[in-house]
Amino acid sequence: MKVYFAASIRGGRADISIYKQLIAYLSNNHEVLTEHIGDDSIIASGEVERTDKAIRDRDIQWIEEWDVMVAETTNPSLGVGYELAYAEHIGKPVIIIHRTNQSQLSAMIAGTDYFDSIYYYEEIKDAIGILEAQLGKEE
Amino acid sequence: MKVYFAASIRGGRADISIYKQLIAYLSNNHEVLTEHIGDDSIIASGEVERTDKAIRDRDIQWIEEWDVMVAETTNPSLGVGYELAYAEHIGKPVIIIHRTNQSQLSAMIAGTDYFDSIYYYEEIKDAIGILEAQLGKEE
Repeated sequence: MKVYFAASIRGGRADISIYKQLIAYLSNNHEVLTEHIGDDSIIASGEVERTDKAIRDRDIQWIEEWDVMVAETTNPSLGVGYELAYAEHIGKPVIIIHRTNQSQLSAMIAGTDYFDSIYYYEEIKDAIGILEAQLGKEE
Repeated sequence: MKVYFAASIRGGRADISIYKQLIAYLSNNHEVLTEHIGDDSIIASGEVERTDKAIRDRDIQWIEEWDVMVAETTNPSLGVGYELAYAEHIGKPVIIIHRTNQSQLSAMIAGTDYFDSIYYYEEIKDAIGILEAQLGKEE
């Protein structure tokens, strides 16, 4: 499957090691779009070689192509919130994973009926177990 | 006008004093929805007496009623990202204000053509000047 992985870039890069491990896991069996989210060279200022419009247009194109979106929502992010709403708008499946011991998920996301696949985890191995079970269902 | 003021709640409350000053200014001439964003008693865990669905449904109802959305985007927030996408989807006017010296605005927002009213500020008085000029135009 084509998996669009959404996570914070300019919202903060504190969780990059978690993103990297999740992307590495997903890449074993799927094509992962936006892999640059797990790229150490991408810092909180984002991709410096592209304009904002070029980044946005590329991401929207990827979103149109994806089969399922996996959003790691622990680190607050305007871009991920925007992408979640876009997914809802076009009816693409979304799996949300959120680390309970770090932050509380936005009520605008947790309270939206469309997002019925929200999973909370503490350890990375739990997150991988969730993705394994859920992506298995989608196939 | 009915102004929907969007800013971070669960994404972090570091900017609450700024939200309060902006809401106080807006309230002089407008009806401000989601005034609780400037309420000291609302901490990062959000509104504890309401379910997420109740918060989401109330906010969406307000969004349907508003004339213009003012989003303060400095503190990253999934909820604000979601609300910006919702505004774009239903075609409501949006004014985005962002403190340049604190964070960089998401490419997904800055790169979206619909959001053509993005203003950067450093001091609260500059933000108020921007709102005065822009809301004057909307009336």
